[in-house]
Amino acid sequence: MTTPFPANSVGLVTPHTIHFEEPLELACGRVLPHYQLMVETYGELNHAATNAVLICHALSGHHHAAGYHSPEDRKPGWWDNYIGPGKAIDTNRFFVVALNNIGGCHGSTGPRTENLATGKPWGRDFPPLRARDWVHSQARLAAKLGINQWAAVVGGSLGGMNAMRWALEYPDRVRHCVVIASAMKLSAQNIAFNELARSAIKSDPDFHDGDYLSHDTLPRQGLALARMIGHVTYLSDELMGTRFGRELRQGTFERGMEQPIEFQVESYLRHQGDVFSEVFDANTYLLMTKILDYFDLAREYDDDPVTAFRHALSKFLVISFTSDWRFSPERSREIVDALIAANRDVVYANIESNLGHDAFLLPNARYEAVFKSYMDNVARESEQLLRNAG
Amino acid sequence: MTTPFPANSVGLVTPHTIHFEEPLELACGRVLPHYQLMVETYGELNHAATNAVLICHALSGHHHAAGYHSPEDRKPGWWDNYIGPGKAIDTNRFFVVALNNIGGCHGSTGPRTENLATGKPWGRDFPPLRARDWVHSQARLAAKLGINQWAAVVGGSLGGMNAMRWALEYPDRVRHCVVIASAMKLSAQNIAFNELARSAIKSDPDFHDGDYLSHDTLPRQGLALARMIGHVTYLSDELMGTRFGRELRQGTFERGMEQPIEFQVESYLRHQGDVFSEVFDANTYLLMTKILDYFDLAREYDDDPVTAFRHALSKFLVISFTSDWRFSPERSREIVDALIAANRDVVYANIESNLGHDAFLLPNARYEAVFKSYMDNVARESEQLLRNAG
Repeated sequence: MTTPFPANSVGLVTPHTIHFEEPLELACGRVLPHYQLMVETYGELNHAATNAVLICHALSGHHHAAGYHSPEDRKPGWWDNYIGPGKAIDTNRFFVVALNNIGGCHGSTGPRTENLATGKPWGRDFPPLRARDWVHSQARLAAKLGINQWAAVVGGSLGGMNAMRWALEYPDRVRHCVVIASAMKLSAQNIAFNELARSAIKSDPDFHDGDYLSHDTLPRQGLALARMIGHVTYLSDELMGTRFGRELRQGTFERGMEQPIEFQVESYLRHQGDVFSEVFDANTYLLMTKILDYFDLAREYDDDPVTAFRHALSKFLVISFTSDWRFSPERSREIVDALIAANRDVVYANIESNLGHDAFLLPNARYEAVFKSYMDNVARESEQLLRNAG
Repeated sequence: MTTPFPANSVGLVTPHTIHFEEPLELACGRVLPHYQLMVETYGELNHAATNAVLICHALSGHHHAAGYHSPEDRKPGWWDNYIGPGKAIDTNRFFVVALNNIGGCHGSTGPRTENLATGKPWGRDFPPLRARDWVHSQARLAAKLGINQWAAVVGGSLGGMNAMRWALEYPDRVRHCVVIASAMKLSAQNIAFNELARSAIKSDPDFHDGDYLSHDTLPRQGLALARMIGHVTYLSDELMGTRFGRELRQGTFERGMEQPIEFQVESYLRHQGDVFSEVFDANTYLLMTKILDYFDLAREYDDDPVTAFRHALSKFLVISFTSDWRFSPERSREIVDALIAANRDVVYANIESNLGHDAFLLPNARYEAVFKSYMDNVARESEQLLRNAG
C-alpha cells in the first residue's frame, strides 16, 4: 500500500480522549472534580514499559505533535520534524505520548469545556494553573497507560519548564529530562511581553471580561494582536530582515503617490494573528501566559536552583539557540550551571541558528544531530532495561 | 532673586506659536496651505547668527526640551539633562531652537488642529508626512528666526533621522549633524513593533477609523497599549530585570491563595500607558510611526548611503548605546561606515549603558562627556565665525 505521507512520518494518527474521574487538587487550592485529556501516541510501548517518552507542549501547542489526521492533511503535527521513524525521537524505538494539557483548548478540560456544576463552559471561571498541575495530571495519564517511569520527558519553551518540574516532582519516574529553549523563570521583559498580549485580549470589547462565550462572540481582534506580539518576539531581528526586509506588499514611495504603503512584514503578521484567532481560545491564552509568568523552578527550594536540582534523579539534555532572545542561551546556561553545581549529569548544546525562539520547532542539522544522538542513547538504555526485565 | 529651579537649568521658559502663511508642498503631493509651529528657544542668538542649534524630537517628543513652564512645574523638558547653562548643549553659548513638528499634537499643525477648509480638526485626514517635510518646515522656521546656517542640527532616534535628512536636503545650511541612537532605516523587526502599536490603536472601538474626535471620544485603551508596546522595546532586558525583576505588586504564590498576582512590571507598564493615552493623540502616533517606517536615508540616492552622504557638507557626531536593541549600535556603525566611505568627518562613540534605547534621554557621564566635548568645539567654531563676521 502506498501512503500520501513522507516515509519518515508516523503517518495517519488519531487522537484519543482519556477521562479521569478522580478529583485533581490544584496548586491554587481549588479542585477539578474530574477532567479529560486529549492524547496522541506514536510507536509501541514495550512490555516492560521502559521506552515511553512524554512530549510537553509550549504556549500554543497541543496533543497533535506528529503525523497527519487525514490523507488530505497537508500539515503534520507541530513537532513532526523531530518525532517519527528514524527521527530524533525515533518512533521505531520509543512509545511517544503527546497530550493537550488541562487549561488547553484542543479537547482537554479547559475554559472551552463544560463545567458540569453549571452546565456551561468554564470560560473565565476555569481555575488558574501552575506547571505542577500539569505534571500531576500527566502522572495520572502515565499510570493509566501503564508507564511507571518515563524514559524521557521532553519539552521546548513552556514545555521545558513542564519537563523540569517533572524531574523535581517525581524524581524516580523520569530517567531523562530534555529542556529546549527554556528557562528556570521568566525575566521582567518576558513578563512584560506576556502582559502586552493579555492587555490586547482584555482590551477587546468582545472579550466581555472573559465571558465572551455567553455573549456568543469571540475577542478575535484582541487575540490576533496578542499572537502578533508573541510572534514578533519568537523570531529574530536577523530572520525578519532576511525573510521580509523592507519589501513592500502594496504602494510605492514615489513622490506624489498617496495610496497606502504596506510592508510585507505587516501583512505577514496580521495574517498570523488572524489565523490564530480563529483556532485558539482567549481564556486559554491568558491562562497559559500566567503559567509561564508564575513558573519559578526554585521558588519552593529556598530560591536556590542548586538545592532544587539536588532533588532530581534524572539526567539532563539542555539545548538553546544563539538568536533566541525570548529564552536566551544565558537562561539555558543558568540551568546547566545549577545542574553542574548540584552534581547532576547534563549535556548542553547552544545551537547556531538565526531563527529565534521558533528554532526549536524548525529543521536544523546540528540541533537534530545533538538531539538524536542523545535520544539514541536513551533508546539503547531503554532496550537494555527491557532485556534486564527479561 | 532666588529661583525654584536648579542652577544649571534654563529656568522658566515660554513656548511661542509661529505662523507660516506660505503653502508647504509635502512629499505625498498634497499641500498644507498654511501651518503653525510651537517653538521654544533657549539662550541668545548672536548678531551674526552663527550659534543656532536645532533640536529634532523623537516619536513622542515636542517643543518643550528644557526648563520649566511654571514655578510649580516639577518636571523639566524632555532633554533637560543635556540642554542648559554649562550642559552638553550649553545655553550660555548656543541659541537653541526646539519645536513640535507638524503632524504633532502639542500645538503645531497636526491631526488635532483645525482644518480651515472644513472648520473641523484634521483628524484622520491629515496628510501623511515624511521626515523631509519636517526639514522643509524647519528651514522656513530658520529663515524666520534669521538663521541662515545651523551650527548644529541635533536629534535622537526619529530626531536623528530628521537631522540626517537636513544634512542632505540643505547641505550648506548645516555645519554639524548630531545623530544619536538612530538608523538610516528601520529593520523589519522595528516595523513589526510599530505595526503592533498601530494595530492596538486601530483595534480600539473608540478609534472610529481615526474619526474619534467627531464621536467625542478617544481611543485611550488602544493608545495606552501602543505606548506599552513601544515602552518595552525602549528598555533593555537587563534594566527591566534590575528595576523590576520578578517583584510582586500584589498577591502571593503561596499554595491555596487564589487572589490575583500582579508583577511590578505589569503595573508599571499599565501606568505608563494610561498616562500617555491622556496626553497624546492617536492619529499623531500613527502618523509618527509611519514617518519612522518610511524613512530610508538612501532611497533616492540609488539606495547607496555612500552616494547619499557625498551630498552632505556637515561634520557628524554619531552616538549609540550598547543595550539599545531597537536602534542597535550596528545601525549607528552603518551610518559611520557610510560617512567614512563618503570621506566625511565623523566622530563616533558607542556608550556603555544598560538603559536601552531610552539611554539617549538619561544621565550618563561618558555620554555627556563625549557630547559636551563635541558641542564645545562647535561652540568655539561658532564664536570664531562670529569674530570673523566682525
